[in-house]
Amino acid sequence: MGSIDSNYDTESAGQCRPLEPEEFRKQAHQMVDFIADYYKNIESYPVLSQVEPGYLQSRLPETAPYRPEPFESILKDVHKDIIPGVTHWLSPNFFAYFPATVSSAAFVGEMLCTCFNAVGFNWLASPAELELEMVVMDWLASMLKLPNSFTFLGTGGGVIQGTTSEAILCTLIAARDRALESIGVDSIHKLVVYGSDQTHSTYAKACNLAGILPCNIRSIRTEAVANFSLSPDSLHREIEADVAAGMVPLYLCATVGTTSTTAIDSLSPLADVANDYGLWFHVDAAYAGSACICPEFRHYLDGIERADSLSLSPHKWLLSYLDCCCLWVKRPSVLVKALSTDPEYLKNKPSESNSVVDFKDWQVGTGRRFKALRLWFVMRSYGVANLQSHIRSDIQMAKMFEEFVNSDPRFEIVVPRVFSLVCFRLNPFSKSDPCNTELLNRKLLEWVNSTGQVYITHTKVGGVYMLRFAVGATLTEEHHVSAAWKLIREGADALLCS
Amino acid sequence: MGSIDSNYDTESAGQCRPLEPEEFRKQAHQMVDFIADYYKNIESYPVLSQVEPGYLQSRLPETAPYRPEPFESILKDVHKDIIPGVTHWLSPNFFAYFPATVSSAAFVGEMLCTCFNAVGFNWLASPAELELEMVVMDWLASMLKLPNSFTFLGTGGGVIQGTTSEAILCTLIAARDRALESIGVDSIHKLVVYGSDQTHSTYAKACNLAGILPCNIRSIRTEAVANFSLSPDSLHREIEADVAAGMVPLYLCATVGTTSTTAIDSLSPLADVANDYGLWFHVDAAYAGSACICPEFRHYLDGIERADSLSLSPHKWLLSYLDCCCLWVKRPSVLVKALSTDPEYLKNKPSESNSVVDFKDWQVGTGRRFKALRLWFVMRSYGVANLQSHIRSDIQMAKMFEEFVNSDPRFEIVVPRVFSLVCFRLNPFSKSDPCNTELLNRKLLEWVNSTGQVYITHTKVGGVYMLRFAVGATLTEEHHVSAAWKLIREGADALLCS
Repeated sequence: MGSIDSNYDTESAGQCRPLEPEEFRKQAHQMVDFIADYYKNIESYPVLSQVEPGYLQSRLPETAPYRPEPFESILKDVHKDIIPGVTHWLSPNFFAYFPATVSSAAFVGEMLCTCFNAVGFNWLASPAELELEMVVMDWLASMLKLPNSFTFLGTGGGVIQGTTSEAILCTLIAARDRALESIGVDSIHKLVVYGSDQTHSTYAKACNLAGILPCNIRSIRTEAVANFSLSPDSLHREIEADVAAGMVPLYLCATVGTTSTTAIDSLSPLADVANDYGLWFHVDAAYAGSACICPEFRHYLDGIERADSLSLSPHKWLLSYLDCCCLWVKRPSVLVKALSTDPEYLKNKPSESNSVVDFKDWQVGTGRRFKALRLWFVMRSYGVANLQSHIRSDIQMAKMFEEFVNSDPRFEIVVPRVFSLVCFRLNPFSKSDPCNTELLNRKLLEWVNSTGQVYITHTKVGGVYMLRFAVGATLTEEHHVSAAWKLIREGADALLCS
Repeated sequence: MGSIDSNYDTESAGQCRPLEPEEFRKQAHQMVDFIADYYKNIESYPVLSQVEPGYLQSRLPETAPYRPEPFESILKDVHKDIIPGVTHWLSPNFFAYFPATVSSAAFVGEMLCTCFNAVGFNWLASPAELELEMVVMDWLASMLKLPNSFTFLGTGGGVIQGTTSEAILCTLIAARDRALESIGVDSIHKLVVYGSDQTHSTYAKACNLAGILPCNIRSIRTEAVANFSLSPDSLHREIEADVAAGMVPLYLCATVGTTSTTAIDSLSPLADVANDYGLWFHVDAAYAGSACICPEFRHYLDGIERADSLSLSPHKWLLSYLDCCCLWVKRPSVLVKALSTDPEYLKNKPSESNSVVDFKDWQVGTGRRFKALRLWFVMRSYGVANLQSHIRSDIQMAKMFEEFVNSDPRFEIVVPRVFSLVCFRLNPFSKSDPCNTELLNRKLLEWVNSTGQVYITHTKVGGVYMLRFAVGATLTEEHHVSAAWKLIREGADALLCS
């Protein structure tokens, strides 16, 4: 190793005490100030990092240092080498993808999770971790008015996963193994799963992981006239055709708030079809599910009582930092049957007595963190009232942006806005070639993002290229939305005059 | 919702600013002091939580509060309701499972990761995140003297996963899809995977997730005379039998440092067999891999140059907090081919130009955290020298415990110690019935853990029930090991005199 200096006095190195409480206190306080200052000055950085690929490798040494380096030097390098390469997701001028929302409460909750570093694979290894997770999952279920069939107080239960991908994978495996039990383990090639062409790309990936043949993943086409929601009739037709062909319909993933345009699949009529054919019915409400804590949006979950599972990511819209995806299931026993392990070295009396929940049997991995603390701190620090107003305030700002778009005849809203995402495009010529319009909007996107003043992204749905303006970064206020719009108009002016 | 108070003034709730920098600063500083004090006083708590199942549900309200609650009340409840239910993994008297090691450096690195909350699914979304991960994975590879075929500077590369389960799942899928391409997608039932009866339980689970039939998961029996390592001859015979039966050998998982007893599978002779039959050869070095940064232990990785992938969890022994599992692969393109997604809303120029690495295509999920910061802070803050002495110091303490055991004729070492885990048992009667010996040790385990003064766990290997004394909690010093041994002897005295 290039940098190893074998003359270094390893005797003194032996004195290293990596968790000396007073040194910990000093460094952590310094880091708090560093972070608070970063949040205070976050608008001074370009939102989208402007570095070139490979920028960092050329700045850092090829090997780790042999001797320790002082904390202050590392912090200095964070400023010098790391921050220029960061795309600032927490900037109030970040309107890309879906924002990842945060809060002081979640931050300190996360600090405490790290502090304990308890590996809660089963109850005994950390009772508080398992039980607090059960409590906050029930709390959130109650905020969403989920039926008791999804709660621990009722007959179901919830668990915190890392991402939607894991939530889908785990429920899919449960459904798969239940089905294979009746049709035989070597009939996996007969299993068919359903979603729409708007279902998140991770769905097909999870299906592939689970051994579902790629040719058996049905991606049902959606239409602009139906706002890109999954048609129960089309679903019904696909299933009928599959059944007629001797295939076995397994799993349906509906989405409340798709990633491209926040399209909403209507749960009740889809549940009719799914229930008729005995499909496992999963609802992916990663982004928009959070809005359903407001009574005026709860109807988007109508029909959830007939689903088998629901996933929702508080890291997207409930101020919770990454990574935190809540998964509720109606029949935990089916999940546990598919995912449980029982090695001797983890055997213990509470688990054997079946008086406790062991979350290692609800997820892909064995180890897990005390993430429930984050949600507990968020819910208690803000209360349901503030969480609702936070959702409403984001939607209000998106409405404001929508009105800006509507007020300028050169622009148009491409898909009706439902939550805090506005899908729009520049379309100044009444009968333009679609390719030209796409090119114009690609140029506009690049123009806007290259300023570093805001960051927005795009999508393409139903053949139409459009820009996405996603409101929701925690620090965003109305004046940021106005300024972003002003910048976008400037971009349009520049492009149309050139 | 029971606790909702609809008279709450939601107008004032609308003023909530969840990331106001000065409030953030205040709360985070308070939390730092809370945590530093916790670390300082950690020995005052029973190591293993002494609560009963259901203790927490009965203490907390059934629903989230409608109004916000002050930070101070929540912190008070952490003391009152959470800490009694925590099993204190960071206590210096924690000798259970494998300890999860930590450090001030990793803590502040993790704070910074949380701070940015950058969702680094692809390069553009956070260039620093992707590039620093490449750098630290190459640094660690260099510390382990991995060949260039595993590094980005060479022809391979590494990625940070959550847990070993995910690392195994991802490589298994890559191997599976490559195999199915030649034998046809509907031949998944022919694929056979290999491990030993000491391979971590998560291996069989990952194989099941990937659609490998349970009857095709070979768990090759190990023997005490071979220290429970996987026999290349047995492996060879199993593979031959499978090939003769028309099956397709797919994947071999070898372990350097098994969970039960830190048994070591000898990589070179296993590589001979795996390479001969074209198996994907994965090495799980979750715990013991870290020791291989010391030249005197590096030989346990001899033969790694002929493996296809290697996983190692710095959260186990490299002071890194959960969750952090490093996975290196020789042929990233095979992994990416199996795991990539390319939805329109994530398309961008750098990705399309193939000039960057997009880690979403190396893992199960899409979103990912800036975990590389943690490893970067650890490696720089302590340097290779201190990390090596930290490993050596743990092993030294385990040796000390081993000598204690050997010095008391009532006790015996059951499996030779290699790293920092001692497998021992109380066996005071020369010709006792094995069942009685097991019962005696079960009682001793319960006696010791019920004191709350230390926490140890057990395993059963080759039919023998034994106690595991795993040294490595970051705060453990020699006097803790001595005190633990004194307590264990007291337990033996009490049990043998009663």
